[in-house]
Amino acid sequence: MSKHETPPRQKVYLYDTTLRDGAQREKLSFTLVDKLRITEALDDLGIDYIEGGWPLSNPKDEEYFREARRLPLRHARLTAFGSTRKKDTRADQDANLNALLAAETPVVCIFGKSWDLHVRLALKTSLAENLRMIAESVTYLKKHDREVVFDAEHFYDGYRSKPEYALKTLEAAAAAGADWVVLCDTNGGSLPGFIEEATRAARDALARYPETRIGIHAHNDADCAVANSIVAVQCGALMVHGTINGYGERCGNANLCSIIPGLQLKLGYDCISSEQLRLLTQTSHLVSELANLPPDPWQPYVGSSAFSHKGGVHVSAVREHSSTYEHIDPALVGNVRKIIVSELAGRSTIVMKAQELGFDLASHPETVSHILRTVKKLESAGYHFEAADATFELLIRRELGLYRRFFTLESYRVIVENIPGVGIRTDAIVKMRVNGERVVSHAEGNGPVNALDRALRNALERAFPELKRIRLSDYKVRVLAEKQGTESVVRVLIESTDGVREWGTVGVSENVIEASWQALVDSIEYGLLRRHSGSPKQP
Amino acid sequence: MSKHETPPRQKVYLYDTTLRDGAQREKLSFTLVDKLRITEALDDLGIDYIEGGWPLSNPKDEEYFREARRLPLRHARLTAFGSTRKKDTRADQDANLNALLAAETPVVCIFGKSWDLHVRLALKTSLAENLRMIAESVTYLKKHDREVVFDAEHFYDGYRSKPEYALKTLEAAAAAGADWVVLCDTNGGSLPGFIEEATRAARDALARYPETRIGIHAHNDADCAVANSIVAVQCGALMVHGTINGYGERCGNANLCSIIPGLQLKLGYDCISSEQLRLLTQTSHLVSELANLPPDPWQPYVGSSAFSHKGGVHVSAVREHSSTYEHIDPALVGNVRKIIVSELAGRSTIVMKAQELGFDLASHPETVSHILRTVKKLESAGYHFEAADATFELLIRRELGLYRRFFTLESYRVIVENIPGVGIRTDAIVKMRVNGERVVSHAEGNGPVNALDRALRNALERAFPELKRIRLSDYKVRVLAEKQGTESVVRVLIESTDGVREWGTVGVSENVIEASWQALVDSIEYGLLRRHSGSPKQP
Repeated sequence: MSKHETPPRQKVYLYDTTLRDGAQREKLSFTLVDKLRITEALDDLGIDYIEGGWPLSNPKDEEYFREARRLPLRHARLTAFGSTRKKDTRADQDANLNALLAAETPVVCIFGKSWDLHVRLALKTSLAENLRMIAESVTYLKKHDREVVFDAEHFYDGYRSKPEYALKTLEAAAAAGADWVVLCDTNGGSLPGFIEEATRAARDALARYPETRIGIHAHNDADCAVANSIVAVQCGALMVHGTINGYGERCGNANLCSIIPGLQLKLGYDCISSEQLRLLTQTSHLVSELANLPPDPWQPYVGSSAFSHKGGVHVSAVREHSSTYEHIDPALVGNVRKIIVSELAGRSTIVMKAQELGFDLASHPETVSHILRTVKKLESAGYHFEAADATFELLIRRELGLYRRFFTLESYRVIVENIPGVGIRTDAIVKMRVNGERVVSHAEGNGPVNALDRALRNALERAFPELKRIRLSDYKVRVLAEKQGTESVVRVLIESTDGVREWGTVGVSENVIEASWQALVDSIEYGLLRRHSGSPKQP
Repeated sequence: MSKHETPPRQKVYLYDTTLRDGAQREKLSFTLVDKLRITEALDDLGIDYIEGGWPLSNPKDEEYFREARRLPLRHARLTAFGSTRKKDTRADQDANLNALLAAETPVVCIFGKSWDLHVRLALKTSLAENLRMIAESVTYLKKHDREVVFDAEHFYDGYRSKPEYALKTLEAAAAAGADWVVLCDTNGGSLPGFIEEATRAARDALARYPETRIGIHAHNDADCAVANSIVAVQCGALMVHGTINGYGERCGNANLCSIIPGLQLKLGYDCISSEQLRLLTQTSHLVSELANLPPDPWQPYVGSSAFSHKGGVHVSAVREHSSTYEHIDPALVGNVRKIIVSELAGRSTIVMKAQELGFDLASHPETVSHILRTVKKLESAGYHFEAADATFELLIRRELGLYRRFFTLESYRVIVENIPGVGIRTDAIVKMRVNGERVVSHAEGNGPVNALDRALRNALERAFPELKRIRLSDYKVRVLAEKQGTESVVRVLIESTDGVREWGTVGVSENVIEASWQALVDSIEYGLLRRHSGSPKQP
């Protein structure tokens, strides 16, 4: 190799178990359609192995494999999951192994015990029979031409308890022809130093089987699953098991969204292409959307706040030298930088935020000063613009004369009445002028804010039928000054969506109804403005 | 040392920055009262250093230190945070350093630059002047008898870029007498292998300064903050910076809730006492409650699902041999196994709680079953008794026939009206029977709950003048089901006091007014019961 050639980068194989181990997460369940859609997204992302389910344990999983086989996957290999044969039976008569073959996947993954304690307590069999169970199961699957992944369940606990035996279970699988032996930290409690020691021992023990490669399967109970996976790769593991967003039972599985960029961008391993890496953020969001779990804004690499910046001085520095304030370029993983308007907001924050919104304020210093004063005044009254980009944009638009009033309030009234035995009734009456006309509208609701929201929409829907597409997706109340009990100032945050994008608005008052009203009105006005004015113009 | 003696365990010092770096998390803001309450909880937990704020950057933080100095802390040392002196000035004339001294804390933490690139681009000064800024700032603070922590900002990035200079900045601080030099992974992008290498280099460079010890300050941008902190300790760091729940800007700071049990239970370091470790889960929940962020159920060690178990066979195995299915005993960190709570431990929780309140339920199994069913039903509807001891006691009293009605509601009505130009008006009307008499009362308020509270008191004060001593000290609103916007279920928590003791009550409804009413009524009833019945009797 001449010194101008780059050495070929070591390939690390990615094994996704979002659909199987990930779905063990409490309150998470995927439909068949969800699972197929995720399978395609994982294939697009460049995942090498997709573990789709456990055919024998779950009839839905059998159906999945029937459908998934027909998907036009370009790269990923479908994998069926199950266990080694039962004790004291023949592999070719084992229902579980035969269900795995019936799934007709190119790859099969079986788990077996590597911890002597579990062989005795859970399997209630001898250590020798356990080794036979592993060997004969692998042999049987290899005879049917499957690529075989052996999951050494509780390997790290086993190595802690009885290292020679734990290593013997790996050798049993390797000697029988397993393509992969995967070291599992099933209880998730190991720390990186121990992972390093035990993984090296496994690598040395398997050195005699050059056809068998090593993998790592980590759980996050000690908050180290990502680090443990990376350390194992550095000790010779060539396959990493994990899930999108780290979903999984208890504290979750190792998070592929963190492991992939870590291995590839920071350590130079070859996992997926650069184009595929840019799909990481959207894949993460798609899976959380299908799981019906809110995306974690603070998630490393792919979270919406992962590249956020606060504070004036700092923000101007970020602008000039982003690479010194960000551990990677967010675009590499398909994410974006986010500038937050906060208590510490400086001039440059306002300019940058306005730019993000399409306004160039760089040459309008007085406007910036004026906005800054307004922001500071409002913040000291309890407003909070971090989660209220739409209220902030409305504020800028007002300052720049780019604001349009859609309606003028004459009055609103909310009545909550509770008569025990009869029930709780809530009514809202809104009186306003819309397009020059006076409108009076009434609505009932299951709470005062809900009634007000409905009355407001009733009043506006004739003039603005597009309002139907705007709905509130989240409503939060925070009591600010606590010492005075119910006399406290209240801040209401509302998140809205029109199905395409989301925006946040804020209202502050001693009166929770009034604070909610402010946030409601901003939400509706912003939604209407977006639809009526398109993208903002320059001042 | 004879072989019967255990070697003394290495002490690792815990430095909590929840109140400063943690509060940088987007959407998080603590009130002064929150901050003081967290300070006390951290002291109870056994935290060694509490970084309370940055006096110069934030007037709220100056106020914090004035108040916090008066707290009766048993162990923790309050720490004020700031930066080294500005370039080309004198330390004794530096506003920031003098603000740090004015905070009158025993410990001061200052950050300075360790990355040559930032010295040039952000400070815009020479590498030599930066070393002087560090040394002179430390010297000045030591002259005023402070314990000095030097945060080597961007140390790991600096070590990557220009190792000799990064190490020189550490030596400058050590030579000037810094008690601690803390290695910061400010951008949070480092992986454990590199942390190990750079930390060892720092340790070797500082070997000449035996009075200066090393610390680690990690961020979670690469999803490795906990592992990085632990690895640094294994390389000689004796102080760990972090936050409760890993709060912090972008992807968060290193999570002390994971680091403490990792170091102490798995590696044998000495951080806090076993009794204090059992406060970990409740401290985590308290901080998330005050931050008004929902606790993360999947959080390692302290999450409500961290020790959950699915599946029948598995569950009975867990019961028999829990230690082989759990990486630690959840009780060690004050957490519980999930299946057991819903089946067995639920009973003992009730018996224990009743005992705490003066009732002996041990010999009343059916009563316990009945209370358990009621509690579970209410909890699944959104009630939360951890912060509502008074509502829980009222529930037990009702079950035991030890409950007395002081009044019967006929109806309440709340009206909020906003006429722009005229103002917002809030009225409440309460109709009830008190001691056989019908009472109708009206009150205005600055919000609907405040008006309701006043009307309720007006109605009762003639019959129960002692009500004047009871006042609400805190009022919190949490929206529970987020997906439906303003149709969500709302939980209201109220804290009350009669000047001697405090109690908490809870109300849940789709209607924020009704939820508040429930919590209000419980608060008043409980206050009256305490004064009228003295301490509870046995059933």
